[in-house]
Amino acid sequence: MIDVPALVAQAREGRPRAVARLISLVEGASPQLREVMAALAPLTGRAYVVGLTGSPGVGKSTSTSALVTAYRRQGKRVGVLAVDPSSPFSGGALLGDRVRMQEHATDPEVFIRSMATRGHLGGLAWSAPQAIRVLDAAGCDVVLVETVGVGQSEVEIAAQADTTIVLLAPGMGDGIQAAKAGILEIGDVYVVNKADRDGADATARELNHMLGLGEARSPGDWRPPIVKTVAAKQEGVDEVVAALDKHHTWMSEHGELAARRLRRAAQEVETIAVTALRERFARVHGDRHLDALAQKVADGELDSYSAADELIASLTG
Amino acid sequence: MIDVPALVAQAREGRPRAVARLISLVEGASPQLREVMAALAPLTGRAYVVGLTGSPGVGKSTSTSALVTAYRRQGKRVGVLAVDPSSPFSGGALLGDRVRMQEHATDPEVFIRSMATRGHLGGLAWSAPQAIRVLDAAGCDVVLVETVGVGQSEVEIAAQADTTIVLLAPGMGDGIQAAKAGILEIGDVYVVNKADRDGADATARELNHMLGLGEARSPGDWRPPIVKTVAAKQEGVDEVVAALDKHHTWMSEHGELAARRLRRAAQEVETIAVTALRERFARVHGDRHLDALAQKVADGELDSYSAADELIASLTG
Repeated sequence: MIDVPALVAQAREGRPRAVARLISLVEGASPQLREVMAALAPLTGRAYVVGLTGSPGVGKSTSTSALVTAYRRQGKRVGVLAVDPSSPFSGGALLGDRVRMQEHATDPEVFIRSMATRGHLGGLAWSAPQAIRVLDAAGCDVVLVETVGVGQSEVEIAAQADTTIVLLAPGMGDGIQAAKAGILEIGDVYVVNKADRDGADATARELNHMLGLGEARSPGDWRPPIVKTVAAKQEGVDEVVAALDKHHTWMSEHGELAARRLRRAAQEVETIAVTALRERFARVHGDRHLDALAQKVADGELDSYSAADELIASLTG
Repeated sequence: MIDVPALVAQAREGRPRAVARLISLVEGASPQLREVMAALAPLTGRAYVVGLTGSPGVGKSTSTSALVTAYRRQGKRVGVLAVDPSSPFSGGALLGDRVRMQEHATDPEVFIRSMATRGHLGGLAWSAPQAIRVLDAAGCDVVLVETVGVGQSEVEIAAQADTTIVLLAPGMGDGIQAAKAGILEIGDVYVVNKADRDGADATARELNHMLGLGEARSPGDWRPPIVKTVAAKQEGVDEVVAALDKHHTWMSEHGELAARRLRRAAQEVETIAVTALRERFARVHGDRHLDALAQKVADGELDSYSAADELIASLTG
């Protein structure tokens, strides 16, 4: 058995090995997970959680690294959670991020963790909040959560973060494509990276136009800013940090920070409860009952709603 | 009340308005949803369901349209389901697909439907199977399901389809990026579109290399082919159809088609059951009980697992 209170005390002091070990515990759904979470609960809620997302190739890892540099210049302790769908070959996270993060690897005030979601539906929703809590309890002022992709994973990252940065780069597809990717719903701050390339101004202009198409805003509403960067050269990154500070202040003043954190907690509790019920299905009946019902659905003998009724009746009856 | 048996009979005859109306019924979770699903169940299981996915900008809509053209030349009836995350502005599907699909709009043997997932987690898993059943019952030989994105939505589309096509285009990011996007797990057929552009051969080569890195395959295993296309000029599209035919035959011969459909049905039944339980949470307690628990979690007074325990106890106790 691991001495959880001792480990938590070491993590609070910022010892990297203790932080890494706690994240492994929450990621691996260890039997001591509940003990860990109970010990962390009173130590959390201080860190500012920033999500970064965007299509492959826009420079997410480089931008994350540049943000770490900017925050370190302010003397802040920074946590980084890089969420990778795992490769089918290694079963683990890829090395790409770590290579780009190397300049921060020896900084004792920076905690970097790659997390594989292993292709699970809800993979991010399940482990990321716990890992964020570990980094929060370890005294990180800022936690940057970087995730690949558009679509569901973007929506999930937005649900985990206080502020969401959506990254774009010139030449990654036209306006309709961007809108299809659903990014206009979730960004609090937009960054057009690789701004030294052709088309950066056009991308920013088009994005600005599309953001302006939304419903009329009230005077106090947040209008997501668009910042141009060349993350590889640290250009424009201080402006991104300034935009984040501004959003943080705006949220605090408008009660939005507390509201977002409440929504996040509610979603997390519900996800854990539903997952526990799902496991109860399997414990009570094995998979055989579900398989028999599914076979009938596949054969057209039963529709899926009636099959679901039978499954529920067998659980609660 | 809608006369469901009459509507289903009309859909079987291939009347577009009846098909559209049935999809609206299943998409909108109408009170008659269960009646519709029960009526459709015995009429389904004949259509070959093909999923298309890839990052924004690779040419998914153009490729879907080109596949429709190829299948129509074979005299087949084709259904298209274009799954769009909705725009925050219109609340509905965007027009991009429809514009590109216009050449098929007046063909009575082609049914095209855009579906908004409205940013819901599990949005695709929830309505798409029902819409696919409608198109199946309407006598479609092939149903093409096009979805935006990488990550979760890709995994979901792969769960819905008999065969999954992953689209790539030259210059959309390097190999590590592709692997991060998780695409190597889910493709049965890979298509490098825009193959008349620089870098197409390099993209195909790199993809081929990465696919080869997988575990040793048994002699009977499916090796996903890589096909190069210029969908806008209909180039290479017949080769894609040939690859799909080959995969369909391979799956039938190896029991894989039945196995995939069984897994799909099991997942669907479980999703419906879990959603119904979720709704029961809300019915029994309103949202107030969950909100109170979430507030404690947000304030650090309670950890999320203990909160989930309380929520479950209140449901089943």
